[in-house]
Amino acid sequence: MPAAFEAQEYRDRVERTKKAMQDRGMDLLVISHPANMNYLTGYDGWSFYVHQVVLVSLNQDEPMWLGRGMDANGARLTTSLSEDNIREYADDYVHSLVKHPMHFVADVIKEKGWDKGSIGVEMDQFYYTHRNHVELEKSLPNATFKDANTLVNWVRVIKSDAEIEFLRKAGKIATKVMQTAVDSINVGVRECDAAAAIAQAQYSGTKEFAGDYPAIVPLMMAGEAASTPHLTWTEKTYEKDEAVLLELSGVYRHYHCPIARTIFLGKNPPPLMKETAEVVIDGLQKTLEFVKPGVTAEEVEEAWRKAIAHSKVVKESRLGYSIGVNYPPDWGEQTISFRPGDKTVLKENMAVHLIPGIWYKEVGFEIDATIQITPDGNESLFDFPVELILK
Amino acid sequence: MPAAFEAQEYRDRVERTKKAMQDRGMDLLVISHPANMNYLTGYDGWSFYVHQVVLVSLNQDEPMWLGRGMDANGARLTTSLSEDNIREYADDYVHSLVKHPMHFVADVIKEKGWDKGSIGVEMDQFYYTHRNHVELEKSLPNATFKDANTLVNWVRVIKSDAEIEFLRKAGKIATKVMQTAVDSINVGVRECDAAAAIAQAQYSGTKEFAGDYPAIVPLMMAGEAASTPHLTWTEKTYEKDEAVLLELSGVYRHYHCPIARTIFLGKNPPPLMKETAEVVIDGLQKTLEFVKPGVTAEEVEEAWRKAIAHSKVVKESRLGYSIGVNYPPDWGEQTISFRPGDKTVLKENMAVHLIPGIWYKEVGFEIDATIQITPDGNESLFDFPVELILK
Repeated sequence: MPAAFEAQEYRDRVERTKKAMQDRGMDLLVISHPANMNYLTGYDGWSFYVHQVVLVSLNQDEPMWLGRGMDANGARLTTSLSEDNIREYADDYVHSLVKHPMHFVADVIKEKGWDKGSIGVEMDQFYYTHRNHVELEKSLPNATFKDANTLVNWVRVIKSDAEIEFLRKAGKIATKVMQTAVDSINVGVRECDAAAAIAQAQYSGTKEFAGDYPAIVPLMMAGEAASTPHLTWTEKTYEKDEAVLLELSGVYRHYHCPIARTIFLGKNPPPLMKETAEVVIDGLQKTLEFVKPGVTAEEVEEAWRKAIAHSKVVKESRLGYSIGVNYPPDWGEQTISFRPGDKTVLKENMAVHLIPGIWYKEVGFEIDATIQITPDGNESLFDFPVELILK
Repeated sequence: MPAAFEAQEYRDRVERTKKAMQDRGMDLLVISHPANMNYLTGYDGWSFYVHQVVLVSLNQDEPMWLGRGMDANGARLTTSLSEDNIREYADDYVHSLVKHPMHFVADVIKEKGWDKGSIGVEMDQFYYTHRNHVELEKSLPNATFKDANTLVNWVRVIKSDAEIEFLRKAGKIATKVMQTAVDSINVGVRECDAAAAIAQAQYSGTKEFAGDYPAIVPLMMAGEAASTPHLTWTEKTYEKDEAVLLELSGVYRHYHCPIARTIFLGKNPPPLMKETAEVVIDGLQKTLEFVKPGVTAEEVEEAWRKAIAHSKVVKESRLGYSIGVNYPPDWGEQTISFRPGDKTVLKENMAVHLIPGIWYKEVGFEIDATIQITPDGNESLFDFPVELILK
């Protein structure tokens, strides 16, 4: 179980991160976001429920992994960091009222002589709690703290060819996952049994390669729940003429290809749903024709808004966002958002999820496109019909 | 899809929370931990990847839910809060560099006139980022902030009879989940396919009731990975004479019953594993004979240490912890820890997970007990043989 990518790829990532640090006047980064930790070192374990960090210093080639003692073997197995760069804290730091893992982190920073410069921390990332900051600040009185909140996220925004390969594998799994959902969801089936079939497909992957756990479990809103986007499943059975909104994902080694579709369990969907589906599918198609290197995120959103302007459909939330490697609770990269004000210029090998989900009081409609930006335009990462599915 | 419990149960929980607030001199609580939000209101959605909170004020009967606009219908569906106590922020607060959801939270606190007292926040909970605190403090200059880090967690520590009922259902699912794992894991099977079968069992539940997603995905360390506790699965196939350490859970409406076992794929486990299994199983049995209302957490750990003192087995990490309702990334309650120094007195209707996992350089062994404290002693929440499983 070595790291997912070649050693050179991790070196490139660390180099680009150091460049971003220099641009922002930071000598040291303290990274607690699990996807950023994975991106920089390969580290992969469900150990992010306790405090752990990766350090990147301008004064050292290799990053360091710092975590709980019992997880150090996990770091040895999933990264190629040298032994001196894997540091473990004792178990009595866990959920203690007296000790805090950031004391240990500060001790290592002092030992390395990195406590006098400017330290970047991810101030608005889950996994970087307020107390983390208080304890670090208290323990490192000679340091200056800066906000490095999405610094590594932005380093991640253009994917390497190896990462695109991972996303394409995730896309193959996504196709299988959505087909499994469509096959499983029928009148009289319990929602939980459909969810179980979907999870089975997500973890199992394809015959050629394994699936992985998604950063968001299957979202599958049916009946009255179809008015809101983030509910999961119940023991209720599906009913005739019920709509089911599915937001799922195929995942390969933590790289996500989201896929969303809407199923109507009947032949005659409500007129509002039918009309919305037509407008949204046409609008998404026109938007995709516009997406290519050189256009900005807000221009893409504007193209979408123009494409649906003839209708009554209104989409108040952002149209989509950038994707890639991630861990719970979110597969969004927190970089590009397709909405007014986002002037990010699209470039080759970015990967984005466009999800024009529309929720009315009584019903909703969801469909999406997960695409790679190519030299001339874009290409879907999965292969699935773009339609309201009637069963 | 109404809230999981009767309205009176939520009122009791809020009352006990207010009592704890009074004891600690807090007028208002800002709760961001998803399990605490669920405990106080019933709110249930995978929306915790954006900022959201529950407010509890001494000056108002009902708590308030504050979250993203698109999730407000989810709050209407899963809680019985009155309309005025469900407040939604606009989508341009999400991942913005200018606006922050805590500005919206502060606005509501000011509107209610709750900005002049003492405000408790969960300073070391994931989901309460450092920036949350900075923005709240800046927006509420007349408030005094106190650490309410595990205040609600401790209110949760003694379960109601209705919660015990949920845990027992989770236990029935746990039994099924582990049996599925034992049936699926065989020489030549891919790890991911065993993981898929396990997830299928977790989500599907039993014929009578649905399963739910666990706060931790299946941890299933095989071969060299058996030296560390928090890895997941790969596309590797299981090999003859390989050990597989399983830490799984049955879950009913977010109530967790963890279950851990070790499988050896052969008839002759390494002597070190066999000896460790014998010592640990015997030690766990003796520890369970000791667990009853009135003893403290550290006394339980001491009983365990004495029971294995005759052997070479050393367990450096805590022996276990309290469980109940939870969301990713952790099913531990962050209250009781079975280790030296924890003087919590065990009481009827507590629920705890004792997990003496032992990891050596080359191999590990895991087995557990998930129990309810009864008037006279304790009772297992699941039904599964306590043994090293040879296949």
